[in-house]
Amino acid sequence: MNEKNNKPVVKLISKPENMLKTIYTACRTCYSADSPINIYENATDEEKMLNLIKNVVASGHHSTIEHIQVSFAISNVSRACTHQLVRHRLMSFSQKSQRYVKEKGQFDFIIPPTIEKNPELKTKFIDFMSEISNKYQEFIEAGIPAEDARFVLPNAAASSLVASLNLRELIHLANLRLCTRTQYEIRYMVKEMCRVLIEQEPWLKDYLVPKCDAIGFCDEHKPCGRKITKSELFEKAGI
Amino acid sequence: MNEKNNKPVVKLISKPENMLKTIYTACRTCYSADSPINIYENATDEEKMLNLIKNVVASGHHSTIEHIQVSFAISNVSRACTHQLVRHRLMSFSQKSQRYVKEKGQFDFIIPPTIEKNPELKTKFIDFMSEISNKYQEFIEAGIPAEDARFVLPNAAASSLVASLNLRELIHLANLRLCTRTQYEIRYMVKEMCRVLIEQEPWLKDYLVPKCDAIGFCDEHKPCGRKITKSELFEKAGI
Amino acid sequence: MNEKNNKPVVKLISKPENMLKTIYTACRTCYSADSPINIYENATDEEKMLNLIKNVVASGHHSTIEHIQVSFAISNVSRACTHQLVRHRLMSFSQKSQRYVKEKGQFDFIIPPTIEKNPELKTKFIDFMSEISNKYQEFIEAGIPAEDARFVLPNAAASSLVASLNLRELIHLANLRLCTRTQYEIRYMVKEMCRVLIEQEPWLKDYLVPKCDAIGFCDEHKPCGRKITKSELFEKAGI
Amino acid sequence: MNEKNNKPVVKLISKPENMLKTIYTACRTCYSADSPINIYENATDEEKMLNLIKNVVASGHHSTIEHIQVSFAISNVSRACTHQLVRHRLMSFSQKSQRYVKEKGQFDFIIPPTIEKNPELKTKFIDFMSEISNKYQEFIEAGIPAEDARFVLPNAAASSLVASLNLRELIHLANLRLCTRTQYEIRYMVKEMCRVLIEQEPWLKDYLVPKCDAIGFCDEHKPCGRKITKSELFEKAGI
Repeated sequence: MNEKNNKPVVKLISKPENMLKTIYTACRTCYSADSPINIYENATDEEKMLNLIKNVVASGHHSTIEHIQVSFAISNVSRACTHQLVRHRLMSFSQKSQRYVKEKGQFDFIIPPTIEKNPELKTKFIDFMSEISNKYQEFIEAGIPAEDARFVLPNAAASSLVASLNLRELIHLANLRLCTRTQYEIRYMVKEMCRVLIEQEPWLKDYLVPKCDAIGFCDEHKPCGRKITKSELFEKAGI
Repeated sequence: MNEKNNKPVVKLISKPENMLKTIYTACRTCYSADSPINIYENATDEEKMLNLIKNVVASGHHSTIEHIQVSFAISNVSRACTHQLVRHRLMSFSQKSQRYVKEKGQFDFIIPPTIEKNPELKTKFIDFMSEISNKYQEFIEAGIPAEDARFVLPNAAASSLVASLNLRELIHLANLRLCTRTQYEIRYMVKEMCRVLIEQEPWLKDYLVPKCDAIGFCDEHKPCGRKITKSELFEKAGI
Repeated sequence: MNEKNNKPVVKLISKPENMLKTIYTACRTCYSADSPINIYENATDEEKMLNLIKNVVASGHHSTIEHIQVSFAISNVSRACTHQLVRHRLMSFSQKSQRYVKEKGQFDFIIPPTIEKNPELKTKFIDFMSEISNKYQEFIEAGIPAEDARFVLPNAAASSLVASLNLRELIHLANLRLCTRTQYEIRYMVKEMCRVLIEQEPWLKDYLVPKCDAIGFCDEHKPCGRKITKSELFEKAGI
Repeated sequence: MNEKNNKPVVKLISKPENMLKTIYTACRTCYSADSPINIYENATDEEKMLNLIKNVVASGHHSTIEHIQVSFAISNVSRACTHQLVRHRLMSFSQKSQRYVKEKGQFDFIIPPTIEKNPELKTKFIDFMSEISNKYQEFIEAGIPAEDARFVLPNAAASSLVASLNLRELIHLANLRLCTRTQYEIRYMVKEMCRVLIEQEPWLKDYLVPKCDAIGFCDEHKPCGRKITKSELFEKAGI
């Protein structure tokens, strides 16, 4: 573990050259007698493009934003978190293999915040990571292959990966995982993915939000209080 | 129909900024103790990157090339062809709607080559397209909405669309649809998709080939003779 | 066309043996220390199972209902409709091929209701289908292969298919396609799919409904008036 | 750990009622003028059905077998293995949650065979699992929630899940994971999935095989010697 950074590190490594124009062309192709090549070549008015995209996304026609895919390099994320992340089946992943990459010396690990903020528990945690590391190395030295020695490695072990997804799936991911009810690590990671993308494409700011911001109310089983709940909304409306 | 162009027209409208570096980073992340951000930032030797990608693709580790997605604007393609194309479920499509876009005057159409090369049949075909157009306009004028009047429009009617897919799916599409046994229209369209992409990314030339070129023999039910068949191969090998 | 039946015909041809028990086992596995085999073997109380499933679906944990897949045989559906249907990329389709199946005599076709209810237009439509059929046969007799002769066949031409999908996707399909704003043909077809399944699994009745019934309000761009709209709801609630 | 069973336990909990008839109907629908409902109702000759399916699968028309989905209850499988398994994105999973299910007493775990066969290492491994368990309980008792205490739990920790997949994906899974180069645990698990399904549907025996048996040669990077390699095959054939 890098003491200075106990959190996922995210870098945007790839995005399409013509994000806005591509989505705009896709949206207009559905409803226009003009050819997509002409639409694309005549697309210059950025404000007009943004407005059309806003209307199309608001209307629920989300297939039009699948044409954009972005890729992130992610490191310093626990195997607990990656096991959760790779359940998003519309994403593409290339993850560091514990079968092929042997840990040399102390493996990197993530300390959960509830443990980190308690100095005593934190020390206990770090010491135990060191014990696990020793046990791993003992098995390696006894001739056990990395793919089997890793059976002692903990969920806390840090992993890294390249993850790609289209804009529709990214909005879905943000809607789900920016909710305050989400586990802190995946929430922080998704927040970072959104942040580094919005830095380069500021118009995405309004889309990469928790679900309650997108739909106007909270439909969680156990609401956090940030937004009116669905049942409160209906009650207030007298329905 | 534009008499000068009875074939699909394809333009590449979007590809990622750092194709090679992105795939290289994905490949190396799986087998390296280094972080993907470092791998990405230190990736400069193009030949080294190409070699690694070649080995990884050859080894069947195809998830690494999913990180690249490309988008094409396609027009002048029959509805017969698009009905076939949209069966590729790992692609994203935005297609001109016959429900929302009313045809004004003669609709564009595609003439199949077997008909086009016979002047008499060609005339008969074009005349009939004109009859269909008249019938469509009659229904429109009688107050029938476009979504129902289109029931008389033929498979030959031209459509246009924006189609996006990742590199893994594009290689799969090329392997399948560049086979000489494929219907001419979708084959020509996929050929064009590959051609315009290779123009900009020449290193993809070896991957965007018919299946027989990729695997070294033909496994089609009715081979075209271009390559040795699988059963001939085994026979020759005395197995 | 069969004059007595101008609408899609749907039959449920396959469903899992233990629908309820399978979903119940999936739901409980996530939150139980017990093994799924034990959970499955001790699952006997149908009411308890239904209640758990209801709560899990209400909480948005929809992956648990993916374990159920059902298959339908569908015929008498226009190619206009099937081109739309096959855009549901999480479904599996096996559709009658116009390339391989040559039409003999008058092809079957679907008459849109706006045309059918006007006797004059209906006659004009039927007569034109007969003209198209004659033109198709002329091309066939001139030696044109079926895959090219079909270029004159209309969107109205009837098709048939086997379609399979999991329960999560079926609920999504119902939510979208039972909306009164959906085109009549696909709406009728999905209604039939739901009806024949509910006949055998009545507990599904509450899930296979239009989106507005599932969420309590209408979020369509052009509402039909059946339910309060989202903006009316917020206005009424004074938000 | 149950000393008597250090391996995945698999039970088939769901399959469609009419497996053969459903696939047969799907295959025939593509090439027949008859309606799928008639095809289905007249399908009685099992041998004829098996032959057609064999030819269709051999010809590569694999979408026809997607209509069949099967569900397995799986337990006693390591988190190392499930992290690998859930990368199969065309499968549906419901997995025991380490966030919601608190371990009480010693957690179940899997001992890798390379460790199990060495009594000294085995003892060391079991003792260390007990140490990890103690550390986990210490954190729980200190008020750390299960979702964070689990950060000390190892890859060896046993998990259980319900997994469903269609026949196309199951054949793909078997082709990949029955290869002797696959990690033993997932290989054993997939073997069990195939075994329990073949017990009830013996005709599947020829399809649920390693890839080399399906294609006739080995295309692995590091072959095990069981089958002729691709390069040996071409060499023998003098190509």
